Amino acid sequence: MIEYIPGLERVPAAESSLSFIDGEKGILEYRGIRIEDLAENCTFDEVCFLLLEGRLPTASGLDEFTRREREARQLDPYMVDLIRCLPKDAHPMAKLQTCVSAMGMWMGPLGMYNDETRMEWAIRFIGRFPSIIPAIHRTSVGRDIVEPDVTLGRSSDFLRMLTGEAPDPRIANTLNVALILHAEHAMNASTFATRVVASTESEPGAAIAAAVGSLAGPLHGGANERVIGMLEEIGSVEAVQPWFEKKMANQERIMGMGHRVYSTKDPRATILQGLCHKIPEVKSGTRLCDIAMELERLAVPELGRNGIYPNVDFYSGILYHQIGIPTDLFTSVFALARIAGWMAHWMEQMRRNRIFRPTQIYKGPRDVPFTPMDRRG
Amino acid sequence: MIEYIPGLERVPAAESSLSFIDGEKGILEYRGIRIEDLAENCTFDEVCFLLLEGRLPTASGLDEFTRREREARQLDPYMVDLIRCLPKDAHPMAKLQTCVSAMGMWMGPLGMYNDETRMEWAIRFIGRFPSIIPAIHRTSVGRDIVEPDVTLGRSSDFLRMLTGEAPDPRIANTLNVALILHAEHAMNASTFATRVVASTESEPGAAIAAAVGSLAGPLHGGANERVIGMLEEIGSVEAVQPWFEKKMANQERIMGMGHRVYSTKDPRATILQGLCHKIPEVKSGTRLCDIAMELERLAVPELGRNGIYPNVDFYSGILYHQIGIPTDLFTSVFALARIAGWMAHWMEQMRRNRIFRPTQIYKGPRDVPFTPMDRRG
Repeated sequence: MIEYIPGLERVPAAESSLSFIDGEKGILEYRGIRIEDLAENCTFDEVCFLLLEGRLPTASGLDEFTRREREARQLDPYMVDLIRCLPKDAHPMAKLQTCVSAMGMWMGPLGMYNDETRMEWAIRFIGRFPSIIPAIHRTSVGRDIVEPDVTLGRSSDFLRMLTGEAPDPRIANTLNVALILHAEHAMNASTFATRVVASTESEPGAAIAAAVGSLAGPLHGGANERVIGMLEEIGSVEAVQPWFEKKMANQERIMGMGHRVYSTKDPRATILQGLCHKIPEVKSGTRLCDIAMELERLAVPELGRNGIYPNVDFYSGILYHQIGIPTDLFTSVFALARIAGWMAHWMEQMRRNRIFRPTQIYKGPRDVPFTPMDRRG
Repeated sequence: MIEYIPGLERVPAAESSLSFIDGEKGILEYRGIRIEDLAENCTFDEVCFLLLEGRLPTASGLDEFTRREREARQLDPYMVDLIRCLPKDAHPMAKLQTCVSAMGMWMGPLGMYNDETRMEWAIRFIGRFPSIIPAIHRTSVGRDIVEPDVTLGRSSDFLRMLTGEAPDPRIANTLNVALILHAEHAMNASTFATRVVASTESEPGAAIAAAVGSLAGPLHGGANERVIGMLEEIGSVEAVQPWFEKKMANQERIMGMGHRVYSTKDPRATILQGLCHKIPEVKSGTRLCDIAMELERLAVPELGRNGIYPNVDFYSGILYHQIGIPTDLFTSVFALARIAGWMAHWMEQMRRNRIFRPTQIYKGPRDVPFTPMDRRG
């Protein structure tokens, strides 16, 4: 009998060579390469190639990958009809899950039992996300859908399709780094969901729909939305100090501070923090950003000695807010990045698959006699 | 360090009091009551109540439950539009997953953090399945959608909405039993997927979409479709003996024979077998049914001594074929039943939730230096 551990915490569910985390030293590597190097030097497409193929691309390899990714950005007309069927006020993540469930239907017949077709699936899904998320948003607010521009990189084109205007290149570069930082993070809940569903040999869309549904949960991808809620609640820079002191006195948790895996500062948070502090040079500082900076200034000396730092969700929420992404799209932007990791885990799972079929501990009654209806009370 | 077991086989993933299986003795109980008693005496609604509430309903309790379930059968007009957007030739399970992802959008705001609202979610999902699956089918074949008739039970109304005609009551009763037998089966792959996604506190539709996606996989819910493929391949009663002898000589597996959990005969298979043998009294025997009976006659003396019997998929495939369900809907009929177990597991998970976040064994390289693009080869 194997011990029952709620949530399977610390139970290994897969062997993987995609990302490595050292939570004590604050190290995150994709395929062995430090996240700092990738954030400094790469485009998101380059990092996708690295995750999917296991090595950084040559110039011609990247050209080919980028060409295919950009081609895959084109929205299927049926998908647009489908998005328009959905109620305007539904959450974008529920809509994204619906679209992903249907996505394979328009991608034509394509097997998934060799590396080449799996790569094709991966590129199609990675390519479709930057056009589908803006289409969901613009339909919700009653605006026309903007077609992709395949001359642009992922971040620029995503922002252009979202707002209708080409973004400042510095904003697009900032988003590019944020996407790289969120592309993959070992066996988190949505990645595990991908592998669980994929293991029955369902179509990849079925598995990615599970991942999107999982990421939508408040315990998983919803944290950065809640950071913005907290900053709104504080309301002004002057209000930060009394608010923070009250939280400390009551020993309450602060949204976006501390992380389960990291006992030192999350390397992604360090990079995002740098970006957040630079954005006001491009876009005039917003109220929420000023509040966040003040909160960080007060919190770090107080909480840092206990290993609690503003985490990746704290900075990503602020960053997305600063660059003008609507709050209800934050989790979708997370998905825009994490689709890379999900597809890489899907490929890894398919290469050496075994169906996930754990067992349960039965806690109910046994051998209960059947009672006819007239004798039930 | 906890041992890595591929597919988490024998690893307990939850405590549950829904169903008990003794694979050596061939026992299956829901809430402690033998499946044979439930199949003999109950309607599917009664079994849903048992699974969700933990006890069999009184007459008035069942009336109330049935009233709510039948009310929930009504299709949302937007859902019909959505189904019509989907390509005709896509698999019904992919369409079902798409619909389920969207289902919550039309159900209005409804919390999920107390037993009452969770029960309401469960009834809405259980109620919607018998109208949504026929709508998917009829739209695919270019026929009008049939509205639900809330005076009818689940099986009758499902068959009526599927074919457009009220079924022979004996056929409806047969389907009722088949649905009871498939309502719940402990920690199978789709139930596990439900719990994994639900554990992030996503909306129930997000979790049930994962379940549908998982059930769609050929390694999970697709087995009974493949039994029909095998019978088609054999082609005639006369061809069974040479086909079977060749399979035995080559030591090949026969579709729909043997089961991972049961080393004796699956109690569900015994009941379904009895039903299969009775159907020709109602509907004139079909070719595939005759082939299946001949295969069973030859296989049982040969394989039964090794604990290999025709399993639940063997008989459910034949039964669904006999009562006129199109082969590509078999897995959806499985879902029509299993939605009860999924919702019961969802409620159980939500009552005492812990996010599923296992770990991984890292197998890749460490500390790889970053190579600039012009030096990659």
